[in-house]
Amino acid sequence: MRLRYKPYAKDKIEQHPQYIVAMPEQYKGKWNEVFASNQPLHIEVGTGKGRFITEMAKANPQINYMGIELYDSVIVDALDRLIEADLPNLKLLNVNARDLGKYFEKNDVDRVYLNFSDPWPKIRHEKRRLTYKNFLKLYEEILVDGGEIHFKTDNQGLFEYSLMSFSEYGLLLKYVSLDFHKSDYQGNIMTEYEQKFSEMGNRIYRCEVKYQN
Amino acid sequence: MRLRYKPYAKDKIEQHPQYIVAMPEQYKGKWNEVFASNQPLHIEVGTGKGRFITEMAKANPQINYMGIELYDSVIVDALDRLIEADLPNLKLLNVNARDLGKYFEKNDVDRVYLNFSDPWPKIRHEKRRLTYKNFLKLYEEILVDGGEIHFKTDNQGLFEYSLMSFSEYGLLLKYVSLDFHKSDYQGNIMTEYEQKFSEMGNRIYRCEVKYQN
Ligand SMILES: C[S@@+](CC[C@H](N)C(=O)[O-])C[C@H]1O[C@@H](n2cnc3c(N)ncnc32)[C@H](O)[C@@H]1O
Ligand SMILES: C[S@@+](CC[C@H](N)C(=O)[O-])C[C@H]1O[C@@H](n2cnc3c(N)ncnc32)[C@H](O)[C@@H]1O
Repeated sequence: MRLRYKPYAKDKIEQHPQYIVAMPEQYKGKWNEVFASNQPLHIEVGTGKGRFITEMAKANPQINYMGIELYDSVIVDALDRLIEADLPNLKLLNVNARDLGKYFEKNDVDRVYLNFSDPWPKIRHEKRRLTYKNFLKLYEEILVDGGEIHFKTDNQGLFEYSLMSFSEYGLLLKYVSLDFHKSDYQGNIMTEYEQKFSEMGNRIYRCEVKYQN
Repeated sequence: MRLRYKPYAKDKIEQHPQYIVAMPEQYKGKWNEVFASNQPLHIEVGTGKGRFITEMAKANPQINYMGIELYDSVIVDALDRLIEADLPNLKLLNVNARDLGKYFEKNDVDRVYLNFSDPWPKIRHEKRRLTYKNFLKLYEEILVDGGEIHFKTDNQGLFEYSLMSFSEYGLLLKYVSLDFHKSDYQGNIMTEYEQKFSEMGNRIYRCEVKYQN
């Protein structure tokens, strides 16, 4: 994600606590207080400009969604979308995925989406990949038993790495497509990166894995 | 594999019991009697015309190899290669992979190679795929603990299926490449099908999985 400094970002985020949750620590274990309806919660880690999570929330009113994004200069674009769409089942969170355990506890989350996560191709940066074992442990600690990770990317190296990391961690590979846009999957919602990279002719890889508790 | 009827095949096979093992039942649990040296045994299931297994045997004299092929009209071509190369560490077996348990027992085999196995794309033929769970069980029953399957194919659907089947069975994904010929893997030995399909521009997929006993 190319970062552009947006001096107005911080203010704008603070002005919309109904969309970008302020003081999220207080909702640990009681996220349903934040949403209009008590229903399953799916989070996207590294949500970027928020197209995927907004469209998912529109398409699936029976699910609560939360888009998690580290950079305020990026999440303000997701905020603009959400202000426009005004969905009762979507919130944003401007935090680092490394700190998920501060904001969520076991059973708070029903599914984790990872879309076009930063590949960190150098082996010395392995720990930063969102499919590194430490992150898989973090997700396990906030997901329900049998919770799932749904992962899309065009990055071959990251996808290979992730398949091995999932296997090593003991996750069950429920679904895999090595050329997702040519598969017979119905109802895919594209992310910003997915649109861009598939237009460049890149293959899209996708998988679903499940914790076997 | 397109089959051509070869009336001479059966006779030729019987004339070369030193290469195509006759009455293999008798060697169950004592395959080392058949080879010049007592060393690990790697088998290829569905060896076709035998290029891979012959070149592997040449390159790795410290390993015993066995190529297993159902059709006599196909295995005679592998036999021709072996007569020409005359390797002390390579044998052929003209049997159906379904019957592996008749010829091998636990710990007889150290590694299974599957190369460009027939894809059987129709779901009602799933049981015939050499990576179907029943076959994974057969391999487990003849492999050493921690034994491995090394699998190459250009068939995307079969590779996706196999990754899921391996995961469901509890195998550990040690290595995966989604574009093997562009990877930095050194010393690949190509099979007949690999040569043909990579020349047509197909991607080659490869993985290594391990039984976790
Ligand atoms: C390559 S972008 C993909 C954005 C979006 N998911 C898409 O597919 O279009 C990755 C995003 O993840 C965010 N990100 C990376 N590491 C993160 C972390 N540790 N916590 C929260 N967000 C993170 C980045 O800031 C960036 O916006
Ligand atoms: C598509 S060919 C590939 C041959 C070779 N491995 C290659 O890569 O060039 C598959 C081979 O597996 C053999 N085969 C298929 N099912 C088999 C079985 N159940 N037992 C033994 N061989 C089998 C077929 O006869 C055929 O020769």
